[in-house]
Amino acid sequence: MEKFKITFYPENKVVEVDKGSTLLSCAISAGIYINSSCGGDGVCGRCKVIVKKGSVLTQPTGRISQEERKKGYVLSCMSTVQGDADIEIPPESRLGLDRISVYTKAEEAEKGKSVIGEDIFIHSPLATKLFLELSVPNQADRISDLERLYREIGKIKEMPIMQTGLANIRRLGELLRSSDWKVTVTLGNRNGTTEVVLIEPRDTSAKNYGVAFDIGTTTLSGQLVDLNTKKVIGTKITYNKQATFGADIITRIIYAQKEDGLEVLHHAIIDGMNMIIKDLIDEHDVSLYAVNCCLCAGNTTMIHLLLRVDPTFIRRDPYVPTASFVPVIRAAEAGIKINPRGLLSCVPGVSSYVGGDITAGVLSCGMNTTEKLTLLIDIGTNGEIVLGNKDWLICAAASAGPAFEGSGVTCGMRAVKGAIQRVSINPKDFSVKCETIGNVSPAGICGSGYIDLLAELLKTRAIDKNGKFHSDKKNKRVRQGEQGMEFVVVYKEDFDLNLDIVITEADIENIKRAKAAIFSAASILVKHMELDFSKIDQIFVAGGLGTYLDMDKSIIIGLLPDIEKSKFSFIGNSSLVGARQALLSLDAFNKSQEIAKKMTYLELSVDAAYMDEYVAALFFPHTDKTRFPTVKI
Amino acid sequence: MEKFKITFYPENKVVEVDKGSTLLSCAISAGIYINSSCGGDGVCGRCKVIVKKGSVLTQPTGRISQEERKKGYVLSCMSTVQGDADIEIPPESRLGLDRISVYTKAEEAEKGKSVIGEDIFIHSPLATKLFLELSVPNQADRISDLERLYREIGKIKEMPIMQTGLANIRRLGELLRSSDWKVTVTLGNRNGTTEVVLIEPRDTSAKNYGVAFDIGTTTLSGQLVDLNTKKVIGTKITYNKQATFGADIITRIIYAQKEDGLEVLHHAIIDGMNMIIKDLIDEHDVSLYAVNCCLCAGNTTMIHLLLRVDPTFIRRDPYVPTASFVPVIRAAEAGIKINPRGLLSCVPGVSSYVGGDITAGVLSCGMNTTEKLTLLIDIGTNGEIVLGNKDWLICAAASAGPAFEGSGVTCGMRAVKGAIQRVSINPKDFSVKCETIGNVSPAGICGSGYIDLLAELLKTRAIDKNGKFHSDKKNKRVRQGEQGMEFVVVYKEDFDLNLDIVITEADIENIKRAKAAIFSAASILVKHMELDFSKIDQIFVAGGLGTYLDMDKSIIIGLLPDIEKSKFSFIGNSSLVGARQALLSLDAFNKSQEIAKKMTYLELSVDAAYMDEYVAALFFPHTDKTRFPTVKI
Repeated sequence: MEKFKITFYPENKVVEVDKGSTLLSCAISAGIYINSSCGGDGVCGRCKVIVKKGSVLTQPTGRISQEERKKGYVLSCMSTVQGDADIEIPPESRLGLDRISVYTKAEEAEKGKSVIGEDIFIHSPLATKLFLELSVPNQADRISDLERLYREIGKIKEMPIMQTGLANIRRLGELLRSSDWKVTVTLGNRNGTTEVVLIEPRDTSAKNYGVAFDIGTTTLSGQLVDLNTKKVIGTKITYNKQATFGADIITRIIYAQKEDGLEVLHHAIIDGMNMIIKDLIDEHDVSLYAVNCCLCAGNTTMIHLLLRVDPTFIRRDPYVPTASFVPVIRAAEAGIKINPRGLLSCVPGVSSYVGGDITAGVLSCGMNTTEKLTLLIDIGTNGEIVLGNKDWLICAAASAGPAFEGSGVTCGMRAVKGAIQRVSINPKDFSVKCETIGNVSPAGICGSGYIDLLAELLKTRAIDKNGKFHSDKKNKRVRQGEQGMEFVVVYKEDFDLNLDIVITEADIENIKRAKAAIFSAASILVKHMELDFSKIDQIFVAGGLGTYLDMDKSIIIGLLPDIEKSKFSFIGNSSLVGARQALLSLDAFNKSQEIAKKMTYLELSVDAAYMDEYVAALFFPHTDKTRFPTVKI
Repeated sequence: MEKFKITFYPENKVVEVDKGSTLLSCAISAGIYINSSCGGDGVCGRCKVIVKKGSVLTQPTGRISQEERKKGYVLSCMSTVQGDADIEIPPESRLGLDRISVYTKAEEAEKGKSVIGEDIFIHSPLATKLFLELSVPNQADRISDLERLYREIGKIKEMPIMQTGLANIRRLGELLRSSDWKVTVTLGNRNGTTEVVLIEPRDTSAKNYGVAFDIGTTTLSGQLVDLNTKKVIGTKITYNKQATFGADIITRIIYAQKEDGLEVLHHAIIDGMNMIIKDLIDEHDVSLYAVNCCLCAGNTTMIHLLLRVDPTFIRRDPYVPTASFVPVIRAAEAGIKINPRGLLSCVPGVSSYVGGDITAGVLSCGMNTTEKLTLLIDIGTNGEIVLGNKDWLICAAASAGPAFEGSGVTCGMRAVKGAIQRVSINPKDFSVKCETIGNVSPAGICGSGYIDLLAELLKTRAIDKNGKFHSDKKNKRVRQGEQGMEFVVVYKEDFDLNLDIVITEADIENIKRAKAAIFSAASILVKHMELDFSKIDQIFVAGGLGTYLDMDKSIIIGLLPDIEKSKFSFIGNSSLVGARQALLSLDAFNKSQEIAKKMTYLELSVDAAYMDEYVAALFFPHTDKTRFPTVKI
């Protein structure tokens, strides 16, 4: 087939591609990830690029304005290569807003410390290192090298079923003798047995690391943990590069059915994970070989894609995943780059739409151990709700979209340094006061920032209860933008930015749908158990929204139920915390299995009442004012 | 490097090789295995080839006679390629005497049936197949595919620790649905856990096969077994192709230390095993995919080489192997071609010089379960002796050489069709009566044939008690041959053979050393326990000597102790029988582990008395006539 050269700017990155390839796929092969909520179907209009030079065949679309068309804008998913071309990717089309550093230290690590149940588990990490000084064989003691090793391990730990791979045995004879019978073994908890994962010369037992991952639809978070001291060494967050292929799980599953789709989605996840690992170990001067295991919590589709398991059946009635409890495997089998013999384990999930991330959340907040009636609300692209206590657990999932994760909204960003997370608006002159994570110049708005912003816009009546802007001449910040009406949160001049930071009516609509999905799921779940919110003893709110969450404002917008504020706790990324707990403790991992087995799942899509609830919640705070008695707007 | 073409005759096989390669290595790369007891050191003189044409540089050697030199004979190990050449490999230099079919059906299968303890084990093969008709998921039953599979298995069998590889999970979703939820799982016993080895569509449970192997230094025996019915489907025997690299274990270990030596030896074993498997499945119309496991018994060095584990330390003081108990692995990891996910297990060994073959022998004769004081004598290249009963077991090993396996002797051959296994000589005219295995034309002499022949030569005084020919004019069969004095057993004219079948003084010397090594090892072991042979209740004699063994004649030559004949039983290849038992029964496999743990090992090389015993036994039947009171020669 005819080949052409495509050059992407400003990277100046060249790729050679077949005639007829879409610009979207060219960008991916150049390692540039572009926004695309619809997965390349020409619907969402997020994947705009500018053709600077060369021959591109593009299809007509209403997503490109006349003005944009003149400047050379096309939808990259609907435009195919017909010759060499130069393509510019504008900042707003880039996944993860390249205006900010995608990677920054997150505050989740600190947050984690205050989470309930953090230290109640026995310290028995997924991988343990033991330094052994073996007795030297002699005529009176001639058992084989392998048995000698097992015998010594047995003196320290009782391990009924011990396994070793052939690769270790092949190296063993020479290794033991050249290291003067002093070696360090790495033992892994592998599906109820103990595996001798690794045998190294001399004493390396002080260097034993693992990585906990939360694999979200929109966001990947990874945390490097010292398995000996239980200390968090560092945390990194990045966008899930799969977002190029669609914003939600369903679009991804559909994409996986395309030729090479599964392979492409699998690589998008593991590339992100491997980048996080590499950044973490480089930054903290840890050797790749000292990282012996990964523990991942993620929704069921993400875990399927991580393991390159076809997720097709997750979205086919009756919505059955291939595996909820996946075995511990070698990380290399999934393409994860840690020690080549290191292990990969996943927190078990409950069902197709309630994954290991929520099991990990339950584990980390400890609701499975308390008498108190507890509600866990995990705010993510897939919003998950769990209700129960030590006796029972029931859960539901709601497709909320990525707005609260700062994706799919005009100036959204991850809850990282530079993200606006608190907002107040002066009702007199509509002047805005912002607080950013890290107290640096603002770069965008994260989930908690949007909640504050919306509550403030409501309180100041800049928007009505439907989310539309009031025409108020006093309010100079409301203006007509390219995408319709918008409110300027930060003027670019004030912080030397390229663009103003704004919130559009479309953004508000997005957030309204997200909060409605979550609130109505919680509401249905509580009703299903013949309870109401007032009976709940405590509510944990989880998610990567920010380092802080204003409960009052969350109630004002109708995201959270209007009950006593003291019952709420914001626990951050509970999935990551749970993954870390399972990484550090076999006890915790076993508990996560119990949780997953115990939890029942309520399928909302078959619940007739859910759609009614959802529609009723498409209002601020709600169409039924009596359900938010304390909200005065 | 300069390349040349070497053509081997009569195969007419061409290989392209580097200048300077030895003809021995060229033959190996052409897939032709040549005799070489010394492993290519120019010492044994067994690797003669004839240079028909072309340029070969050869070193002077006393192993080639002047007459041979004129005909173009060279030692292939001492001759290097300098240009294109045509090389003929004479029959006597070929491993396994190509005059006969190397593969024939062996009688071991039939022999096995009569072995003690054959059917006392619970039927629980290394791999079990279960046909499952899974319930179809519905809204009330939405557990994942993998859990559904486990649940169904759990209804049939209790399996506390269940494992499945990622490869199976990746195929599971599609497989279950396309096969209408009717699948066959293959479950393997893997190191104390149960592995779901394989999942196949529909009911294939009737086709479940395994292969038991005895991996000897000189001989490979493989047996295809129906794991459902416990029936032996077929047996094949071939020479261990490693014999090209040396006749005994020590030469092989030294060879393994050469560059690529380990790789070459590993391939020589697995090539032989794969040939046996292929022949067995082709002949019996069994699919490769229906062969799910292998169970191997072999001496410690062979098991190391099978697994490509460096055997170096086996021959370094204090003689410690890398592993005596090797884990169950995937057969493909060792290069064994059965179902790609099939398992490979090995009977555990005791020490560097007492391997799983002898553990399997003990298992098969059941001496570990009886009150009777029992002696097991396994006659092989490495002769192994075990003494004991249900309370204790002690063993020793003696390097006997391959003579009793029909190797390293002029007209020796495996105990297969055409092998002379019984001989009687008329004392009046020295006429010879032979009986061959399968009652076909004689092709050579197997171990039991040599024992008979030697006893008859002694009884008729054709040889003296030192093994030298008497000059007796009446005996026309004794003559001067190319290798010194020899006795013609079969004249080529009588059966239209290419060569006479003879026994030379060098052959007799070889057999004398072999029998002396075994007898003296047994003798020392008995003395070590402060016993004498008369106290022994039963003696099992094992080995691939033939389908029959004449105990009287074995005593006459001094191979076996001179005690009551009724105490002896010949049990054939007990290692293969034990391997089959372990293949068919986890119970038997576990017993083999107990045996290996229980058995103590007496190292003869450090026993001062052993050399004295050995030298005293280098006589027919023995220098001390009082130890063989019934022998009148």
